[in-house]
Amino acid sequence: MTEALKIALAGLGTVGGGVVRLLDTNADLIARRAGRPIEIVAVSARDRAKDRGVDLSRFRWIDDMGEMAALDGVDVVVELIGGSDGPALTLARRTIAAGKALVTANKAMIAHHGLELASAAEAGNVAFKYEAAVAGGIPVIKGLREGAAANRIQQVYGILNGTCNYILSTMEAEGRDFADVLAEAQALGYAEADPGFDIDGVDAAHKLSILASLAFGTRIDFPGVGTTGIRHVLAADIAEAAALGFRIRLLGHAEMRADGLFQRIHPHLVPVSHPLAHVTGSLNAVVAEGNFVGRLLFQGRGAGDGPTASAVVADLIDIARGEYGPAFAMPVAALGEQPPADPGAREGRAYLRFTVDDKVGVLAEIAAAMRDSGVSIESLIQRGAMPDGGVLVAIVTHKGPERAVAQAIERLDGAPWLRGQPMLMHILD
Amino acid sequence: MTEALKIALAGLGTVGGGVVRLLDTNADLIARRAGRPIEIVAVSARDRAKDRGVDLSRFRWIDDMGEMAALDGVDVVVELIGGSDGPALTLARRTIAAGKALVTANKAMIAHHGLELASAAEAGNVAFKYEAAVAGGIPVIKGLREGAAANRIQQVYGILNGTCNYILSTMEAEGRDFADVLAEAQALGYAEADPGFDIDGVDAAHKLSILASLAFGTRIDFPGVGTTGIRHVLAADIAEAAALGFRIRLLGHAEMRADGLFQRIHPHLVPVSHPLAHVTGSLNAVVAEGNFVGRLLFQGRGAGDGPTASAVVADLIDIARGEYGPAFAMPVAALGEQPPADPGAREGRAYLRFTVDDKVGVLAEIAAAMRDSGVSIESLIQRGAMPDGGVLVAIVTHKGPERAVAQAIERLDGAPWLRGQPMLMHILD
Repeated sequence: MTEALKIALAGLGTVGGGVVRLLDTNADLIARRAGRPIEIVAVSARDRAKDRGVDLSRFRWIDDMGEMAALDGVDVVVELIGGSDGPALTLARRTIAAGKALVTANKAMIAHHGLELASAAEAGNVAFKYEAAVAGGIPVIKGLREGAAANRIQQVYGILNGTCNYILSTMEAEGRDFADVLAEAQALGYAEADPGFDIDGVDAAHKLSILASLAFGTRIDFPGVGTTGIRHVLAADIAEAAALGFRIRLLGHAEMRADGLFQRIHPHLVPVSHPLAHVTGSLNAVVAEGNFVGRLLFQGRGAGDGPTASAVVADLIDIARGEYGPAFAMPVAALGEQPPADPGAREGRAYLRFTVDDKVGVLAEIAAAMRDSGVSIESLIQRGAMPDGGVLVAIVTHKGPERAVAQAIERLDGAPWLRGQPMLMHILD
Repeated sequence: MTEALKIALAGLGTVGGGVVRLLDTNADLIARRAGRPIEIVAVSARDRAKDRGVDLSRFRWIDDMGEMAALDGVDVVVELIGGSDGPALTLARRTIAAGKALVTANKAMIAHHGLELASAAEAGNVAFKYEAAVAGGIPVIKGLREGAAANRIQQVYGILNGTCNYILSTMEAEGRDFADVLAEAQALGYAEADPGFDIDGVDAAHKLSILASLAFGTRIDFPGVGTTGIRHVLAADIAEAAALGFRIRLLGHAEMRADGLFQRIHPHLVPVSHPLAHVTGSLNAVVAEGNFVGRLLFQGRGAGDGPTASAVVADLIDIARGEYGPAFAMPVAALGEQPPADPGAREGRAYLRFTVDDKVGVLAEIAAAMRDSGVSIESLIQRGAMPDGGVLVAIVTHKGPERAVAQAIERLDGAPWLRGQPMLMHILD
């Protein structure tokens, strides 16, 4: 057996602790599979004193995280600090500049600086890997970069944020409202105290921009992701969707269109017959459709110390084996540059929900706005009995251009009888 | 861009034609992803005259398949001839002996001779890859060999034969009997004229033995797979299972137990809440459970020219990139040797169905056999109205050792009122 692969681990939060435990627990098996042992030699974190439930005394402690990049005898730096910039980015840049391999779980950093890091890694001929950045333990980066590499991918979509899926599927199972379930998730530690990154779709957008680059061979375009979260989904929406044979899921969806790259995070109605409708709790799932392979589905746990550590160590095993190449499947210079596609040109069905005053003529105004925008209505339900005394009007449109639905909503903007913003969700057909 | 990877393709059936079409259709994209073009230079098949719908005139035609291994200027031989021995094995051995890489979709050959071929490939330092051999287009070999490599896999199970799944899900959807649906599947070309390899579970057993080796780091043990197919599943079984909240699927199931390696192909009752219950038609799906990653699910099209070609070309891209290593994740010498586990020691619930004469005392005999074997009954249904005038008795047991259920069946063996063999199916819990 050849010499051990030597690791410096920066960041000892949930995932960092998981990596230490995993390399301890499965050490023999990993050495057999990797062809050599994988050993942590140095660690660093913000707070040295904190008890992390793992014995760190056997590792060299480095106070200044930035110094991790320059340690003698280290082959790979594992960056688990988090944040798109700051110490994580500094360490990532220095690691590659020092000619060492970089493994990270940092989706925000890759969404913003991945191409710069990949270019530097290519120039320095070092490994740069990030399986844990998207969908936790599910090997979907590998699935797209390698498993489906023979295919022109037509679209990639999925459930990319476990917190949102937990909230939506709990709302669904228990008939509760968003704020109530979010508060509980925060109390249980499933959602952050500042939950915006998750529930407003930013975390999912980071991940989608990475998947899109791998799927389509294009440059990462995080600003090009249209992002809407789940804050405004009501228990009533979930009930209406269920009555129509759908479940509500926050989907990331990317496709290559004639006019450019379409990327969107948005709540969707998913037919109960679709596998994504059965992805509940904090699970993640990604679907990729290729021109030869057809539809592939990858499903598993998208977060947590165990699954994320599994993905980090899978990257380390690839590096130990010498089985790695360009981070985004091809050299950065070969990635295409695509403008964002106009979503208005896409055709699909939509769910529209208005919460309105209980007044004569409101339904006529809504119907007129639909007609005048060229939106064809497939079904419409009006119900009283909203908690605030308002009336709910839920519409499912026939298939048509998204532009028309957006226009209809615009026509109704500022109507005095509207209570809050209309809710628009796309239907996955 | 470096020089093209040059391919000799042996076997021009459905999959071979798919590989030619795929390399044509996606040539530019594949060259970008692989870092260099992938080009077929020579082809061979049994019948040169046959029209395969693709232009083969641009390739060198080789009459003797065995000669493919020795062609100058060829980097990789793709073996799509099929059959565990004969010309496929001859070509595979010669290819590796000639120092060329081997890619194959031949599950039977790998189940029987995979370790020999992998040892030779290691000794010669050449690539030996076989993603297409298991679950068609689904990158499950890569998923286990690399994606989940950090984990001690506790069990791997799934739907590994599309023909059986098509038959079972058609029986389920249309309430029809096995023979009827099989005949239709044969007429439509979904099942072979000699369907035994599929419906008796042999094809699935080949695949399971390969998955088990990757999952557990053990030597392939095809003879150690206990194999039962779907011939004796009745429409009535599917109806009883449905009434109890289950669907019937032919599962391959492998787990590492204290006394050895458990491997089995058997029809199972799968709870409707389990993702495998929603895998219908000719789809395949594989679940792997690891000690850190938890439950991973891979799903997609398990057969057909497009999906299988996608997997073959994924292997070629890995080879073009230089991203490959030991075929079974570790050197053959490092693979463990495990005796087959005693299935009788496993604990689980079971479904037992007896078709019996409509006579006084039969139910008492069945109940006594259960009691005397220590089998605890969770539910029992007796129905008349079987097509042959017999009576159906369907039992679901409480969780208990499989040995006890086998004993109960043995006790009833030869009972004069039994019509045909009792049907035993395990319950996936």
